[in-house]
Amino acid sequence: MTMDAALDAMAQLLGDRLSRSTPDRDAHGQSESWFAPMPPDAVAYPKTTEEVAGLARIAHAHGVPLVGWGAGTSLEGHALAARGGVCIDFSRMDRVLQINAEDMDVRVQPGVTRTRLNEELRATGLFFPVDPGADASLGGMAATRASGTTAVRYGTMRDAVLALEVVLADGRVIRTGSRARKTSAGYDLTALMVGSEGTLGLITELTLRLRGQPEAVSAAKVAFETIEGAVDAVMEVIQCGVPMARIEFVDAATVEAFNSQHDAGMPLHPHLLVEFHGSPTAVAEQAELFGAVAEEHGGEGFQWSDKAEDRSRLWEMRHRAYWSILASRPGTQALITDVTVPISRLAEAVRETQADIEASGIEGPILGHVGDGNFHAILLLRDGQEEDVAEAKALAHRMADRALRLGGTVTGEHGVGLGKLGYMEAELGEGWEVMGLLKQALDPKGILNPGKLLRQPEA
Amino acid sequence: MTMDAALDAMAQLLGDRLSRSTPDRDAHGQSESWFAPMPPDAVAYPKTTEEVAGLARIAHAHGVPLVGWGAGTSLEGHALAARGGVCIDFSRMDRVLQINAEDMDVRVQPGVTRTRLNEELRATGLFFPVDPGADASLGGMAATRASGTTAVRYGTMRDAVLALEVVLADGRVIRTGSRARKTSAGYDLTALMVGSEGTLGLITELTLRLRGQPEAVSAAKVAFETIEGAVDAVMEVIQCGVPMARIEFVDAATVEAFNSQHDAGMPLHPHLLVEFHGSPTAVAEQAELFGAVAEEHGGEGFQWSDKAEDRSRLWEMRHRAYWSILASRPGTQALITDVTVPISRLAEAVRETQADIEASGIEGPILGHVGDGNFHAILLLRDGQEEDVAEAKALAHRMADRALRLGGTVTGEHGVGLGKLGYMEAELGEGWEVMGLLKQALDPKGILNPGKLLRQPEA
Repeated sequence: MTMDAALDAMAQLLGDRLSRSTPDRDAHGQSESWFAPMPPDAVAYPKTTEEVAGLARIAHAHGVPLVGWGAGTSLEGHALAARGGVCIDFSRMDRVLQINAEDMDVRVQPGVTRTRLNEELRATGLFFPVDPGADASLGGMAATRASGTTAVRYGTMRDAVLALEVVLADGRVIRTGSRARKTSAGYDLTALMVGSEGTLGLITELTLRLRGQPEAVSAAKVAFETIEGAVDAVMEVIQCGVPMARIEFVDAATVEAFNSQHDAGMPLHPHLLVEFHGSPTAVAEQAELFGAVAEEHGGEGFQWSDKAEDRSRLWEMRHRAYWSILASRPGTQALITDVTVPISRLAEAVRETQADIEASGIEGPILGHVGDGNFHAILLLRDGQEEDVAEAKALAHRMADRALRLGGTVTGEHGVGLGKLGYMEAELGEGWEVMGLLKQALDPKGILNPGKLLRQPEA
Repeated sequence: MTMDAALDAMAQLLGDRLSRSTPDRDAHGQSESWFAPMPPDAVAYPKTTEEVAGLARIAHAHGVPLVGWGAGTSLEGHALAARGGVCIDFSRMDRVLQINAEDMDVRVQPGVTRTRLNEELRATGLFFPVDPGADASLGGMAATRASGTTAVRYGTMRDAVLALEVVLADGRVIRTGSRARKTSAGYDLTALMVGSEGTLGLITELTLRLRGQPEAVSAAKVAFETIEGAVDAVMEVIQCGVPMARIEFVDAATVEAFNSQHDAGMPLHPHLLVEFHGSPTAVAEQAELFGAVAEEHGGEGFQWSDKAEDRSRLWEMRHRAYWSILASRPGTQALITDVTVPISRLAEAVRETQADIEASGIEGPILGHVGDGNFHAILLLRDGQEEDVAEAKALAHRMADRALRLGGTVTGEHGVGLGKLGYMEAELGEGWEVMGLLKQALDPKGILNPGKLLRQPEA
């Protein structure tokens, strides 16, 4: 059988770093979201680009699917083996290859996680800013065009990746981009690969842009009487051009989870959690301006702190919001969904979404990176309540429709994967067909992460 | 004949907005650089996307080349009809369609020029930051991934374009992106089209990201004893994270042209021309920091001014540098070439380039957007001195090699067009073949701007 032949050839290449064990397959057949498990036929642990290229040559010859795996933190099922095949786990390609402090860039292997990178950078005065919350791998973050809390200031992976090394479907290796800050040398293959979710190539090396650690940092939380007050404050502060480093919205239900899981002692109101970066003068100026805008919109208790430990506690709590919400309601899973709208439509989008959830039979805390117009709903599914799934899907569907109606996107940062496939035609129209043509050009056999992102052949 | 049949059908579509007159063809067969004229067979002046789509359908049916034309300011021959065919002049698609001040974005037709857009934005408190010097059209700027003096702070067209409407080779119309600030909905078709030089599609509408007009602006020039002093100051100030709005290098030969053409009265030394944007406090802080760094590296006469008229004069002069250099040496043309290197290699790259030019038989002022590691040499060709062309090409070739050796790119912002085709294999390797596959997928008949950017079939 062709799968067996492919796995035999891969085992010859990798030895015991090709695993067909059930625990390994099961561990790589799960996601952090609500999708049913989809285990691969085997898990490969390559250590070099040449090994990844070798795996691709074998898979290409035998028509076997290849699915990349970083840290498994995707929320839309990107790394599930929807059509079986071989999962390529990049955890053993985890070296920081070269830190160029003078040029503020770094070359890494794809299995390095963002927190590992930042630990290694600590002494240089530089940091890698993209922060999706989860301790994702940098390869996975590039593949899914991740963003998160700091994108409002520092951009997303689209902005952070200078160059990539990519193994193509047939095992050819290309380098996209260079260490130059800008180039106009042909098509932007770097940007094409970032966000392609492993369907056009496998990322085996990244050159990332770094930022200088800000001289001063301060953070704050502020409570609002209403969601509108909080969101209006965000719109105004962004429109004033205050260069917020972070500006996060959490609703009262999220605050409740913070209080129960982190002993946060916060009033049960919607909050903004914010951070300022810059020179001490600039940070003070920004904080003052933000405070004034927040107060105008009913913000209360604004108090900023430049203590590193206060900040760590705040963002640790924010990053763990999803798990805190689940932990505070034992016996629930979640369907988490994510949209982005133009900032002028943000209040409307959040208000309508909240009203829709309230009118439904399920709970759904709302939180998000509101400085980008981006927010998530964590739609809670009680174990054994089959009707919750249908209700959550209907809510998510209306949320996606609403985002499109307001000029936005059905997936601000979680990607397409399996979960957002059904909305691509509505969002992209003929553009989705163009994506199919590009896929066909680079992966004519369709072996790279099949079942994701693109229009699927009729069953 | 198939060209005649195509032109007849196009004339039916556009009436007298399809011109076959010699003056029209000649005007669209020239460039601002040293390339021989390559007039198209006809010039089309569409007014709507539907007309552009109609032109594409006809061209596609007859296998006739289509070449986009914005303002004709490209420096690498992008808009020359290298294989004949029809030039699509976008000057009658020049409407600003929608200014969304709250969201800081704008929708425009491709024929709007950057200065026109900024005039229309003046009252809104917003501006469009990308500034390549020439009053280019926004469609052309997107097609060539233009950048210029402000990219060090605000990025290039890669960063400024939120979404595009594009007519494909067969006349299909797609929309890439939305007004959302970020998205992870599939492949980044916007980034793929930006910089594709009209070889993948014709841009018929752009949604652009705007910036808030800074509260305070100040500008300055400072003289340095040596090129090294100037370039080292740039490296240090960038590495310190000073958010320079502009930081431009001009060598003594360029200053000479400023003096003779603009009565600038500047000392005949290398200079940095700089601009700071921000709150009044931030601008003062930045200027002070820059001044200190400049002084350390031998900078003299640093004095900043917040007078708008001083600033306009300074940047007008900088923008006209190319023409001033030509005007101050009657009877010359220029081969202008452009590279970018990592900032840590900038001093080395500029120094070696200058030495190489000095050792040659021709003159070649050097200037550039050094905050990005980007600089240009304007290699002067005396009329009737055939050997100058060979000398300039050899210098440009060594400059490109040097950029690659130092980890940079052979074209920082001028694009590939015709002029940089010969370096693509060295810079991109197998990536160039991948670009060919993408081209083949979207334009199988090869009618869109043939002869540019991609590997050309053997003659």
